[in-house]
Amino acid sequence: MTDLLRREPHVISAGLELLADAAERQAARVTRVDWKPPMTGTEGDLVTVLGDRRRTDANAFAVGRMLAARALLVDLMPARDALGLRPGEFLHAGPPITWDRASGPLRGALMGAAVFEELAADPQDAAAMAERGGFALDPCHAHHAVGPMAGVISPSMWLFVLEDQATGRRAYCSLNEGLGKVLRYGAYSPEVIDRLRWMASVLGPLLQSAIRAGGPVDVTAILAQMVQMGDEAHNRNRTGTLMLLRDVLPWLVEASFPASDVSAAVTFIGGNDHFFLNLAMPACKLALDAARDVPGSTMVVAMARNGTDFGIQVAGTGDQWFTAPALTPRGLFLGDYGPADANPDIGDSAITETAGLGGFAMAAAPAIVRLVGGSVSDALAATRRMYEITLAEHQHFQVPALDFRGTPAGIDVTLVARTGILPQINTGMAGRVAGTGQVGAGLVTPPAGVFPAALRALAKATATSPQPR
Amino acid sequence: MTDLLRREPHVISAGLELLADAAERQAARVTRVDWKPPMTGTEGDLVTVLGDRRRTDANAFAVGRMLAARALLVDLMPARDALGLRPGEFLHAGPPITWDRASGPLRGALMGAAVFEELAADPQDAAAMAERGGFALDPCHAHHAVGPMAGVISPSMWLFVLEDQATGRRAYCSLNEGLGKVLRYGAYSPEVIDRLRWMASVLGPLLQSAIRAGGPVDVTAILAQMVQMGDEAHNRNRTGTLMLLRDVLPWLVEASFPASDVSAAVTFIGGNDHFFLNLAMPACKLALDAARDVPGSTMVVAMARNGTDFGIQVAGTGDQWFTAPALTPRGLFLGDYGPADANPDIGDSAITETAGLGGFAMAAAPAIVRLVGGSVSDALAATRRMYEITLAEHQHFQVPALDFRGTPAGIDVTLVARTGILPQINTGMAGRVAGTGQVGAGLVTPPAGVFPAALRALAKATATSPQPR
Repeated sequence: MTDLLRREPHVISAGLELLADAAERQAARVTRVDWKPPMTGTEGDLVTVLGDRRRTDANAFAVGRMLAARALLVDLMPARDALGLRPGEFLHAGPPITWDRASGPLRGALMGAAVFEELAADPQDAAAMAERGGFALDPCHAHHAVGPMAGVISPSMWLFVLEDQATGRRAYCSLNEGLGKVLRYGAYSPEVIDRLRWMASVLGPLLQSAIRAGGPVDVTAILAQMVQMGDEAHNRNRTGTLMLLRDVLPWLVEASFPASDVSAAVTFIGGNDHFFLNLAMPACKLALDAARDVPGSTMVVAMARNGTDFGIQVAGTGDQWFTAPALTPRGLFLGDYGPADANPDIGDSAITETAGLGGFAMAAAPAIVRLVGGSVSDALAATRRMYEITLAEHQHFQVPALDFRGTPAGIDVTLVARTGILPQINTGMAGRVAGTGQVGAGLVTPPAGVFPAALRALAKATATSPQPR
Repeated sequence: MTDLLRREPHVISAGLELLADAAERQAARVTRVDWKPPMTGTEGDLVTVLGDRRRTDANAFAVGRMLAARALLVDLMPARDALGLRPGEFLHAGPPITWDRASGPLRGALMGAAVFEELAADPQDAAAMAERGGFALDPCHAHHAVGPMAGVISPSMWLFVLEDQATGRRAYCSLNEGLGKVLRYGAYSPEVIDRLRWMASVLGPLLQSAIRAGGPVDVTAILAQMVQMGDEAHNRNRTGTLMLLRDVLPWLVEASFPASDVSAAVTFIGGNDHFFLNLAMPACKLALDAARDVPGSTMVVAMARNGTDFGIQVAGTGDQWFTAPALTPRGLFLGDYGPADANPDIGDSAITETAGLGGFAMAAAPAIVRLVGGSVSDALAATRRMYEITLAEHQHFQVPALDFRGTPAGIDVTLVARTGILPQINTGMAGRVAGTGQVGAGLVTPPAGVFPAALRALAKATATSPQPR
């Protein structure tokens, strides 16, 4: 003690800014350590889970599975064939939900899908049918599928079929409809239904023919190139869409379809910068499904929103969802829409962030933060912050502006609980009222509560699991 | 003096590092100013030219003309129709040159072009014909045209026709053949000639049909997007090629050509990341031709190499070329090729750097410096250095990594002479021996001597021109 008082004081402040400021005002030498206490109430569960001797190996195994997955687009087919969906069955984005709790855009999409399936004469008829319990709902995620925004999949919709040929594992996603008045944003006007009919009768069969003739398209390879070309594969999919078009073109041209259909298809795909999103998402789903069901792993394998609840699933806790009310994104609005028009966060597209893309790859796509008023340094900071809560750097997704460092990938529930840093998600915004469509795009995070809830379940599993020596 | 000695000394060192180091070792306070003397022998001419009262306005006018140009791809046609070339007439890259001084790759390309034109039975026959003076040679630049590498254009080759619709001005460029054994790198084997025949009989007419049916393609708009997507439009043209393909696709599909031809064309374009280079170059040529012939302007309007000489042209000195022996690029070599195999710098493609793209936009395409062993910070530094010698920031070409700052555009001869900073050029490398093809790619600068030579001519023009008051 006498020695301590004799030397010049050097204050190390771990997160206590008030103390550091006061010491500095007294001309003391202060080193500030960026530290925050863990998320409230997680201390006990953290001690339990961090003490789980399986954890390090289990996370390495789960991360390795995720990074090793290679997604090829191998086929397209209707959901009734791909997933065995029957009339009246609908898949949706996010954790499980019932019609009575469903948000406007999810209701709107279900109403439109029922009209598209000719189960109802019009959207009002469809809503009445839903009220009577006529719709069977289940999450896409429970069927190796994902859907952007409302994420509604009905039997007659065509799906991309992605496969990891090393494991035979498959994942599925609907075809992207473009922006504005589209089913996934909850719109159901006749133009929306007509477009879905054209996609099912022309676009799907034509792409199926091209893929079957030309062979698989390496979606993972395209994702790797996109990150070098300004796309983060969630809100920017420009170069991905162009590369897909390039790869299937010769086979589209040589397919025995009328030139007017081929021309309409390439115009539709080429005019929709987001077309590739519906391939990026199932590629991420394929990688994360490979990391599921690893006892002891604290890695997040799904983040998804149904427009009411935000849910996560974790490798060490099977198919259990940890949910909390979804937040509303902050960002830019189309036309006259404003914050009051926005529905809470919705869609399975946060699967891209779960796999190290989207908001986690923001440094690769600074145009996105610029859209919501940020600068390039904000984009770099967003990606750098995600390294604090992830287990790996993705070997395929390398960011030029970070000297080709891999994107942060594999969210660790314990790191989120310890740091309080929440995953950064880029997203579109749907109108709150059924039938509206898209109202904007912006940034959002999960509700903080889902991570302590997942940690609690992990702690319970730890306590009841045999520990390796 | 007594006051100066009484105060604490503060040394300001302008470029004298030895002095600054010595003063610092004696604990003096030193401020280093980054300064170098002007290029040797340019002091007198700098005084004359910087004193030219027309200069500021003339440069503003020339830069304004360059920045205002908007290049549309409006047509394709054979060089005989576009430029009135007759059999035995050949255009080539760079400043004027005769067969006896021509480098291997230029000779190889001319030999191949003569075989393609059926003027000679084989390349040796063509060389003999050239020795007898049977070829009429003229620079592309003298015909509102540009050509990459050897840049040879013969009457039967098809050209892109670009137009600035505000002025009616046009610029021309050949179609890109891909990489490896290709005429522009001096190869002339039968596969090279066969490819040129297919390009003239199928690719050119098909693209002509698509452009005539679908209307002009906005090349300047595509260039602006490329810079946001990892391309610098000289050594990387990936997204540009994809966007071109997207824009012409519907019209290619609906053209009344056999599906096998359309399929071959989209495979050829989609498989050649450099296809768009031959649109980037004439777009830059169009912009810089608009800035020609502005008395008093010190802005460079062409940098071009014929494989023997590097030449520049300046807005204030008409069509006069200022030349010096071309340097040899440093970079990476293909296969077993090495520095001894490389020809000195060749091609009109440095028109991209002259317009603020290529090496000047390196910060937009860090993948390029990485290829030659550099890092992202080298790419940023290369672009930042070019602001020192340019007159403007390009309003269309904005670099995400520089917070969307416009690229440095409009090289000023006086700034090069004052700073000694030479323009940074990205380029391919041709084999020194005729018939070889591409041997590598790398970085190069103009030979320093062309700038003092241009400055001397500007000084002479200043001395004999009436000065505004």
